[in-house]
Amino acid sequence: MKMIHGSCVEFVNELASKNAVPGGGGAAALTGAIGTALASMVVNLTLGKKKYADYEEANKEIMAKAIQIQEDLMEMVDKDAENFLPLSKAYGLPKETEEEKRIKDETMQKCLIQACSVPVDIVKKCYEAIVLHEELVDKGSKLAISDVGVGVQCLRAGLISGWLNVLININMIKDVDYITNINEEVRPLVAKGIAKSDEIYAKVEAMLS
Amino acid sequence: MKMIHGSCVEFVNELASKNAVPGGGGAAALTGAIGTALASMVVNLTLGKKKYADYEEANKEIMAKAIQIQEDLMEMVDKDAENFLPLSKAYGLPKETEEEKRIKDETMQKCLIQACSVPVDIVKKCYEAIVLHEELVDKGSKLAISDVGVGVQCLRAGLISGWLNVLININMIKDVDYITNINEEVRPLVAKGIAKSDEIYAKVEAMLS
Repeated sequence: MKMIHGSCVEFVNELASKNAVPGGGGAAALTGAIGTALASMVVNLTLGKKKYADYEEANKEIMAKAIQIQEDLMEMVDKDAENFLPLSKAYGLPKETEEEKRIKDETMQKCLIQACSVPVDIVKKCYEAIVLHEELVDKGSKLAISDVGVGVQCLRAGLISGWLNVLININMIKDVDYITNINEEVRPLVAKGIAKSDEIYAKVEAMLS
Repeated sequence: MKMIHGSCVEFVNELASKNAVPGGGGAAALTGAIGTALASMVVNLTLGKKKYADYEEANKEIMAKAIQIQEDLMEMVDKDAENFLPLSKAYGLPKETEEEKRIKDETMQKCLIQACSVPVDIVKKCYEAIVLHEELVDKGSKLAISDVGVGVQCLRAGLISGWLNVLININMIKDVDYITNINEEVRPLVAKGIAKSDEIYAKVEAMLS
């Protein structure tokens, strides 16, 4: 059974345990999904309200995107676990002989890149959902403005957490092209996502104060 | 049935819906519980390792505290919903006559303070768990250092999210003593919690870079 179909209590208890999965990657994906769900909630509390009639279509588009991102992030909770298990096994491979060393090294390199793939996607999806909350600061009902703030904070946590799970693996990856790509494509997205989250949060806080 | 005994998918879908609960408060509590569970996980991955033998007792104490905080935060997911429902009903009370206005106003004041109580506790519990991660930067296995970073980011999000749910209600509360107490006791804890989280994260990032 997929972990996301287990109860919230089971997931959090399993996370706390010493089992290899779920780990930081699954926590990142679930936290991102929670933040994305709040974008849909804010739209749901806004649609049909006269005061926001001008944003009706824009808000429907925001929700359509949020529903898809939420689904993607929820799937990543289990996908990250599947992608991480081979790496956690590879660590245990023998390295007595030269041949064993070579095999372990090759296996590790393949598994490290596989373990990075979902965390990279978590960063990208969280960034996309942060952009949705940015729109909701103006287009969402002011009565739900605190939920925009909560959503953004959860997504900021998801984004950084995805990144941490890239960082811990990338130090051991030898493929220079892969590392260059991560540094050029993903690293700047993390910085942009944090800056954007902090801007959105400052606006929300000002509206509440 | 308690929401936390429903599946993760159900919780996130309900969060996305227009239903009054779960809302931002439940999201805050669950995100905080996820961050706290990661402290237990890091201890679980450290106990018994020779390299960290000196911290064996300290780590066991960290885990005992983390288990309790995790349980408290998980309970708050449902408790926040229970405490929020009366307020969401009070908004709908009639206010045609002077008598109705008086009753609505009195009811609202009581419900607003009730709705703040769990968010205040979320802030306090998340702060306590952030302090546990602070210890784990040195006492936890370096192999799990990214999980300390993820844990801290989730707790930072939980702490701020709890605070946002205090802020949105406190603007309407007239009890001056209550507001003074929040400003003196809770507001500084939020600022301290954010500063501490950012310090811990900077250390984790430096260790991974």
